[in-house]
Amino acid sequence: MMLEKNTKYEISFIISESIYEGFIQLFNDKNPLHVNESFAIEKGFKGKVMHGNILNGFLSYFIGECLPIKNVIILSQEIKYNKPVYLNDRLLFTAQVHDIFESANMVEIKFSFTNSDSIKVAKGNINIGII
Amino acid sequence: MMLEKNTKYEISFIISESIYEGFIQLFNDKNPLHVNESFAIEKGFKGKVMHGNILNGFLSYFIGECLPIKNVIILSQEIKYNKPVYLNDRLLFTAQVHDIFESANMVEIKFSFTNSDSIKVAKGNINIGII
Repeated sequence: MMLEKNTKYEISFIISESIYEGFIQLFNDKNPLHVNESFAIEKGFKGKVMHGNILNGFLSYFIGECLPIKNVIILSQEIKYNKPVYLNDRLLFTAQVHDIFESANMVEIKFSFTNSDSIKVAKGNINIGII
Repeated sequence: MMLEKNTKYEISFIISESIYEGFIQLFNDKNPLHVNESFAIEKGFKGKVMHGNILNGFLSYFIGECLPIKNVIILSQEIKYNKPVYLNDRLLFTAQVHDIFESANMVEIKFSFTNSDSIKVAKGNINIGII
């Protein structure tokens, strides 16, 4: 197993117009909070709030493409959305190998997303299996 | 609040070629398990395994579009992937309002995805805020 406990990873992601539009086209979630600027502002946000599950798409990329091994599968994942994310936000994704369970070929990774104002907008953890 | 405890929802989703290809285009997760049929079979699966986070995209649609109220935001979510999902699988999504916390304007929803062989492929829960 080439994953080492405590190893850290960092990736920068941008919630670009094309990611935002592409997510809506793919999954058809046009909730007013996501598409109606004045609705979102009326609800106390500073603009349209991005879909939280865009961050889960970034997680998919991280697990599938950025680890030193490719023979992995996500077993479970959880995420808490602490603060809203807006269009064109640049998010620093940080992940750390939290625990390795050799007997089950399982690895637990903790992660967070931080915006350019240094606000932690989301955090969670993923359990992956080594296949 | 128009969400009632124990109310159930059901939606049918298909992991179509266009959803699968669209997800890869959007998030660029081309892990061999997802794109290389022979790799997946060698690892004991019956074909390319679909990205688990496609199911989280379906969840986004459910929360944003299928509830009787639109003034909602996802606070946190977790999902366990019990069994693999394959291309063209038809998944029955079932969700139930599990708990309502009026004082926090929070609602907990439990959900599962079941394939056409009646196998529960994934399950989890989502906490949403009423905004």
